[in-house]
Amino acid sequence: MIFTAQQIAEALNGVVEGDPSTEVTSLSKIEEGKKGTLTFLANPKYTQYIYQTQASIIIVNEDFTPEKKIPATLIKVKDAYSAFAQLLELYQQTKGKRSGISDRAYIAPSATIGKDVYIGEFVSVGENTIIGDNTSLFPHTTIGNNCRIGNSTTLFADVKIYDECIIGNECTLHAGIVIGADGFGFAQQQDKNYRKVPQIGNVIIEDNVDIGANTCIDRATLGSTIIRKGAIIDNLVQIAHNVEIGENTAVAAQTGISGSTKFGKNCILAGQTGFAGHLNIANGTIITAQSGVGRNIKEENTIYEGSPAFRHKDFQKSYIYFRRLSELVKRIDELEQKLKDNTK
Amino acid sequence: MIFTAQQIAEALNGVVEGDPSTEVTSLSKIEEGKKGTLTFLANPKYTQYIYQTQASIIIVNEDFTPEKKIPATLIKVKDAYSAFAQLLELYQQTKGKRSGISDRAYIAPSATIGKDVYIGEFVSVGENTIIGDNTSLFPHTTIGNNCRIGNSTTLFADVKIYDECIIGNECTLHAGIVIGADGFGFAQQQDKNYRKVPQIGNVIIEDNVDIGANTCIDRATLGSTIIRKGAIIDNLVQIAHNVEIGENTAVAAQTGISGSTKFGKNCILAGQTGFAGHLNIANGTIITAQSGVGRNIKEENTIYEGSPAFRHKDFQKSYIYFRRLSELVKRIDELEQKLKDNTK
Amino acid sequence: MIFTAQQIAEALNGVVEGDPSTEVTSLSKIEEGKKGTLTFLANPKYTQYIYQTQASIIIVNEDFTPEKKIPATLIKVKDAYSAFAQLLELYQQTKGKRSGISDRAYIAPSATIGKDVYIGEFVSVGENTIIGDNTSLFPHTTIGNNCRIGNSTTLFADVKIYDECIIGNECTLHAGIVIGADGFGFAQQQDKNYRKVPQIGNVIIEDNVDIGANTCIDRATLGSTIIRKGAIIDNLVQIAHNVEIGENTAVAAQTGISGSTKFGKNCILAGQTGFAGHLNIANGTIITAQSGVGRNIKEENTIYEGSPAFRHKDFQKSYIYFRRLSELVKRIDELEQKLKDNTK
Repeated sequence: MIFTAQQIAEALNGVVEGDPSTEVTSLSKIEEGKKGTLTFLANPKYTQYIYQTQASIIIVNEDFTPEKKIPATLIKVKDAYSAFAQLLELYQQTKGKRSGISDRAYIAPSATIGKDVYIGEFVSVGENTIIGDNTSLFPHTTIGNNCRIGNSTTLFADVKIYDECIIGNECTLHAGIVIGADGFGFAQQQDKNYRKVPQIGNVIIEDNVDIGANTCIDRATLGSTIIRKGAIIDNLVQIAHNVEIGENTAVAAQTGISGSTKFGKNCILAGQTGFAGHLNIANGTIITAQSGVGRNIKEENTIYEGSPAFRHKDFQKSYIYFRRLSELVKRIDELEQKLKDNTK
Repeated sequence: MIFTAQQIAEALNGVVEGDPSTEVTSLSKIEEGKKGTLTFLANPKYTQYIYQTQASIIIVNEDFTPEKKIPATLIKVKDAYSAFAQLLELYQQTKGKRSGISDRAYIAPSATIGKDVYIGEFVSVGENTIIGDNTSLFPHTTIGNNCRIGNSTTLFADVKIYDECIIGNECTLHAGIVIGADGFGFAQQQDKNYRKVPQIGNVIIEDNVDIGANTCIDRATLGSTIIRKGAIIDNLVQIAHNVEIGENTAVAAQTGISGSTKFGKNCILAGQTGFAGHLNIANGTIITAQSGVGRNIKEENTIYEGSPAFRHKDFQKSYIYFRRLSELVKRIDELEQKLKDNTK
Repeated sequence: MIFTAQQIAEALNGVVEGDPSTEVTSLSKIEEGKKGTLTFLANPKYTQYIYQTQASIIIVNEDFTPEKKIPATLIKVKDAYSAFAQLLELYQQTKGKRSGISDRAYIAPSATIGKDVYIGEFVSVGENTIIGDNTSLFPHTTIGNNCRIGNSTTLFADVKIYDECIIGNECTLHAGIVIGADGFGFAQQQDKNYRKVPQIGNVIIEDNVDIGANTCIDRATLGSTIIRKGAIIDNLVQIAHNVEIGENTAVAAQTGISGSTKFGKNCILAGQTGFAGHLNIANGTIITAQSGVGRNIKEENTIYEGSPAFRHKDFQKSYIYFRRLSELVKRIDELEQKLKDNTK
């Protein structure tokens, strides 16, 4: 399909700068843009490429002012990244959706399957489990007994859902995810042996949640481990028993959260962060990458860094001096020497 | 089923404080306890809830002394957490156990299957492999050739066991675990290419071991990677070739252990810890979360922290001053200024 | 099979020291060596065992000089580890290779399967996908539509390849790997909800790449996430969208790399390292374990440590003083006291 800059600008509520009849047929990255493609500039790190790219149309933020001439036609919008995402969505919708129920799948007789569901090869659906309308189960996905999967939800290949877990509507779960394995709960006996504490709770994932590949969310000891609506979770994340992730909270890859810790709304946990158990983390908290949080965070919208973590600004000050510690030691050496000389 | 405080106290060897005829029908968390439920208090962080909970019976440690009146009936026991775990076990036993061998499973003709085994849909069992009595293989589990799985062991959905690996009795392996993949062994050639070192050993998991979802335990180059009896391992842990985990050692989530490192008994490795290769770690060692260990630990029962890790107490002292480094710098600045003034 | 020291030395271009007619029948670790086995010494940490081992033949580096008498026959070679790896390869080749296509596998009608391919039970191969000659797909592996898998490549149990991804020749992918899940791309809306950015690119893995169990490599937003030839990647690694891993770069377990970061050739990323997004890392860079890199690294062949990381040598200096921070504080205290005394 061919689109003109004018057509695209109208679809995105944007303004054309340059030739509105410029035509494109596909999308590209700005550093690899070719003639006939449309690209975008959102991250300032890539600004240099806007002067070099061969792309024919570039979507930019409305406050972008070029420093020199740009051969491409620009479309100015409020938020270039969101606008480009919108085009990607349109592009993806042109691709077909999988459908039908494979006769190589196993569906327990007591399970209930909704309308317009896709169930791939070797899927296994347990007793009394309910699968909602328009939901897709890719090959090898295994769902236990007494589970409930909502409408328009996608479970990619080989997702594992244990018994009694609940997944909402319009969720996306990527390959290899494990939902509802036992929490890591053991009581140490006097002879040092560990005795397993049965985990009789479940996992509840609300609507519009997105979870990355090979992430693990453990079932609660009692009650539920809960992922609130709109949360987004990346790959290889560990979420322990009885944790609660707040609405629209983002959890980057390889983060680990210990048992019973609860997060407010709109938090951002960067990659490889860690959290002790039984904490309460306030709305809007940001934790920088590789940091480790051992205490409650009560004030909203603060940033923490370090392991153990403290206020980001304070950490950064301390870290600057940590990098120069040998200089500081030299200054102390000199002070001692001078004082010695003075008192001779 | 209905139980009275008196009946439960007798089962747990506890003492009732309050009305021994108080009745309960289910279990709850203390912060969510409702009338007719039984809960417990073990972690002091939750003490506040004992004065608010609607739960009818609360199990507490025998040394617990309330600061104000508690409406619930108390049962005092030696170890509240263990006692509650016992009740959870009884509760779980009332749930049925899966049984039977699915005709959608593949079992190699030369494999030997014990008595009262559950084998779910799409399980694959390789040549000459032996599965013990009362063992459960949940859907999609794949076991290679020449493996041996003990009695009363549970492999949840989609566990992957490579050829020649051995799993003991009464083990629990959660979904997505990989046992026996090749160790990360390569010899770099002069042209910078890596040449793979074949990994011809195996993995041995002794009795009563519990392993979490998506954890990986690599096969040995030669000999065996060994997990000793009673060890407990959480989700997403990486255990490299020829590692040895000691008896009753606990390994929390996302910990990574490099090749040939050996741990004694009763160690505790907190979450996201890392270990260099070829180390020996003494019995009873504790490593705090996110710490990285690069040297042998010879003395038993010590605690290490930091990356690289050193003695916990020393780390804590250093970290307190790290947090205040800018204050220290100011003090050095002032000293320099004063000395300058003094020598004018 | 029986081999003499003489025969082995000839095969390895080595020199016998001791009795050239010494015979062995199998391989062992130096610390567990028994009579009739061959072992090797490469890591100096194990030198003590050469004087104790019962192994009959030991391969050593040509510059190795014993401090006391060794009962075993030595074979001196240029690189003992590589030489031993060669023997392991010969040993492994004596084991059979799996073959045949299981009738329990599902192969889409439009897929193309090469010659001498092994396809295990419950494998699923999607539409228009091409599988090369001599390639092995172990049980439960799932390959999407429009993929291309090269020749002589092994995919172990339960590898998941999403649509449109490309895997080269002579690659090894271990169990549980996920290739081509969506990158973690979301645009936050004004109401704080996240809107998913469709990920329409793919993953390209070039020839001779080795990837460890449960590792995740996300598909690109646009274009490709690329793993260059000869790269080796360990278990539980996270590689985000549009990342590029250079030739012969080694990535140890549990490393996490954020979107669009690009690595040169011959880099070494130790275990549990982390990388921010949109970085360029020069050829030959080494990052020590648990370090976190937040900036571009432009100079080749440097070593970085810390979180955030800076030059390894500088980090080590700072860390020595960090360990002694309380001493430094005491010195400052004393200086202040002395100055006070002096000015009385």
